[in-house]
Amino acid sequence: MKFTHKLLNASRKNKSWLCIGLDPDPELMPEVDVLQFNKAIIEATCDLVCAYKPNLAFYEVLGTEGLAILEKTIKHIPSDIPAIGDAKRGDIGNTARAYARALFSVLDFDAATVNPYLGFDSIEPFISYHDKGVFILCRTSNKGATDFQDLRTNGLPLYEAVARKAQEWNIHGNIGLVVGATYPDELRRVRSICPEMPLLIPGIGAQGGDLASAVGHGVDARGEKAIINVSRQILYASKEKDFAQAARKVAEKIRKQINDYRNKAR
Amino acid sequence: MKFTHKLLNASRKNKSWLCIGLDPDPELMPEVDVLQFNKAIIEATCDLVCAYKPNLAFYEVLGTEGLAILEKTIKHIPSDIPAIGDAKRGDIGNTARAYARALFSVLDFDAATVNPYLGFDSIEPFISYHDKGVFILCRTSNKGATDFQDLRTNGLPLYEAVARKAQEWNIHGNIGLVVGATYPDELRRVRSICPEMPLLIPGIGAQGGDLASAVGHGVDARGEKAIINVSRQILYASKEKDFAQAARKVAEKIRKQINDYRNKAR
Repeated sequence: MKFTHKLLNASRKNKSWLCIGLDPDPELMPEVDVLQFNKAIIEATCDLVCAYKPNLAFYEVLGTEGLAILEKTIKHIPSDIPAIGDAKRGDIGNTARAYARALFSVLDFDAATVNPYLGFDSIEPFISYHDKGVFILCRTSNKGATDFQDLRTNGLPLYEAVARKAQEWNIHGNIGLVVGATYPDELRRVRSICPEMPLLIPGIGAQGGDLASAVGHGVDARGEKAIINVSRQILYASKEKDFAQAARKVAEKIRKQINDYRNKAR
Repeated sequence: MKFTHKLLNASRKNKSWLCIGLDPDPELMPEVDVLQFNKAIIEATCDLVCAYKPNLAFYEVLGTEGLAILEKTIKHIPSDIPAIGDAKRGDIGNTARAYARALFSVLDFDAATVNPYLGFDSIEPFISYHDKGVFILCRTSNKGATDFQDLRTNGLPLYEAVARKAQEWNIHGNIGLVVGATYPDELRRVRSICPEMPLLIPGIGAQGGDLASAVGHGVDARGEKAIINVSRQILYASKEKDFAQAARKVAEKIRKQINDYRNKAR
């Protein structure tokens, strides 16, 4: 099944555009094994989300064991909920092919994030997996995003040039974009350039992005395809034994807020 | 010891600016275990190089076992030869910190490659390891490099804007740049913007870059700091049992060519 269909099915079934970032940080976590933590979070929230998004950095920092935990975490995600590998990879042809295979065949992610700096041939090996989703970094949620992404190129900021190229490259219909909630005006411009693409929107909560404008500017004409990612606010809702139930409560609240803003946006 | 000192010491001891890319590809390799392959290549060439550069994609595609092979490969590199982790990572603050730790503390690389698209706060966690080297992608060796890296921003191509920012950010003296040998004019411009930085130069051999101009335009005023990376041409010099000796012969030849061109450049 195509990634976009799987995403839409999951979001319609769970009435949710909330994505939970599975980024286990031992310094913030309750005293529990990382895999048990992820499993408990998934079990407590899998009827409330449209996707899960593990960021590979938090597993790589745990060494070889971390990669094993990541594999088991992905297997634990229900098969009808997409798993997005937040890897932000970008490399040349034959190396990009190895990365795409690592993420889509070895780890079995339904989608992955990629970096556009190396251009089309770094992204082509990912989009050639027609059933997988490929989210290209466009306007990221961090402060340093302005360093290069806002530079004007032929009158347009670089991130808009990336959005336009993504639109042009989307021949298999499996490209999406990453746009931070912390820059609502930029999000609106990207949505107008790419009216039908799924947008992956991090930056809510700990990073300070505003949920109302993220949803309002992020959704497509049907009020869909704005994947609102939240990590720390949900994962670390409690440091006690009740962490999974606390996470569920926050996830329920944010799902409802997203849906209220979606209704207003229509 | 600072990365640049370690690099200069290794290159002076071995009279070499050749770096071997340790990118094991089971389809191109002789019939031998990947770790044994890497060990044999290292043992046959460690007096001929200034550095080794494993690209993480080729290990990630092998799954959890691949990461174990990478760890053991790094440990097998002699302690006076720098190991550059070609990871091209780029992510926001706390995630970038996890990546830096994964590469510099968990895997114990002496240097790593990073992607500039996310700006300063994605690179800062890497350069804050003062003894480690950080190579920022500037002008890559692939065809798609022109898609964004050549776009004019305030009259300058984006890759030059990246080179200028890298120069400005280099407060700890541990930043270098990645510039492909396939674009000699661009390499010359980057060297003029950053006269003292180490430049990591891939694209020789299989990718078609010209060695004479890579060396001529890449070296600093002393004829140093141009790290010429070669992977496939050396690793796969033979598919038979003599692969390590065949690799050594090619490495010897390229080291000599590089030194000849360095003499001409001075």
